[in-house]
Amino acid sequence: MSHSPLLASLIESLKILPGVGPKSAQRMALHLLEKAPQKAAQLATDIQEALAGIGKCQQCRNLTETPLCTLCTDPRRNASLLCVVETPMDVLAIEAAGGYRGRYFVLYGSLSPLDGIGPADLGLDLLAQHVATAEIEEVILATNLTVEGEATAHYISEQLRAIRPLKLSRIAQGVPTGGELEYTDPNTLTQALAGRKHYA
Amino acid sequence: MSHSPLLASLIESLKILPGVGPKSAQRMALHLLEKAPQKAAQLATDIQEALAGIGKCQQCRNLTETPLCTLCTDPRRNASLLCVVETPMDVLAIEAAGGYRGRYFVLYGSLSPLDGIGPADLGLDLLAQHVATAEIEEVILATNLTVEGEATAHYISEQLRAIRPLKLSRIAQGVPTGGELEYTDPNTLTQALAGRKHYA
Repeated sequence: MSHSPLLASLIESLKILPGVGPKSAQRMALHLLEKAPQKAAQLATDIQEALAGIGKCQQCRNLTETPLCTLCTDPRRNASLLCVVETPMDVLAIEAAGGYRGRYFVLYGSLSPLDGIGPADLGLDLLAQHVATAEIEEVILATNLTVEGEATAHYISEQLRAIRPLKLSRIAQGVPTGGELEYTDPNTLTQALAGRKHYA
Repeated sequence: MSHSPLLASLIESLKILPGVGPKSAQRMALHLLEKAPQKAAQLATDIQEALAGIGKCQQCRNLTETPLCTLCTDPRRNASLLCVVETPMDVLAIEAAGGYRGRYFVLYGSLSPLDGIGPADLGLDLLAQHVATAEIEEVILATNLTVEGEATAHYISEQLRAIRPLKLSRIAQGVPTGGELEYTDPNTLTQALAGRKHYA
């Protein structure tokens, strides 16, 4: 049985959501139409309003409804510390962890020449300009611990080093909390041993 | 960190999708804004068009863009056979299985007095009227094999029996294809034994 064209379009559109395949998209489409038409209308409106109203912070590129985000304008945040992350999700994860009180810079990805993602796409000119003019003492490179994330962190560290002297750091690599050595991959174990901390 | 109001609304709305919790909704919202703004706009439009353009078939209550659905108007379908199912998903599942060539009637749920879902909500008056006037020889009750589905099937069988003599059947209960007896629940095993088929 073929779907009606409108239903087929809706299912196709729902598949753009991360983690949603053809089967889930079909279930979602029927759920929206059958069970929750009013909420579905609200969802459509919310998507449109978010697209129209949410942009990137002019300073850190995080998502915001105002020219500068709440993190960049909050005077209680430590302006001398800047944490560079790949996505707004990473900002939320670090904020949820709670210990960090500095500011952020969001790249929206990592360098990937094959996909045509270069320094300009990651806002590295804005980052360089910000680091050159603001009173930043340390930049923490918190890109993912993947090949692309490592390459991006290295590229940024070289770029910023050329601007002016400042502390540059990379988040620690090691065995995660609750992790068991038996099930930890060899590369992580090697890094965890090399980065061992001595007792005081 | 609190989300911006527009982002918070979008995340809240995405949670109405089946299988989507707070964490997935957040990931979806950021994905729509960051990675796929054009597709997100298309999704919003598709939801609105589907809500406006898709309704229930006047005969079988399946989802359709026209007064009667393609299954009800297809002359190649066997009009003497009617399969009563709980949802449009069930219609798709049976159609995907391929062997059935009759028509359908969609209940959109099962009888549930505690939730205030009665015969009128399931369109049972329309079903009764259809069975009374159409040339239907057999009604297959294919509601779920749950307590509610069983009760609904029983209720409908009693209701239709009172209208006129016709064949009434219930889909078979048993061990599913590929199922192993060791892991089959006792109730299913009992039903599978009781419903055993003798070799010719």
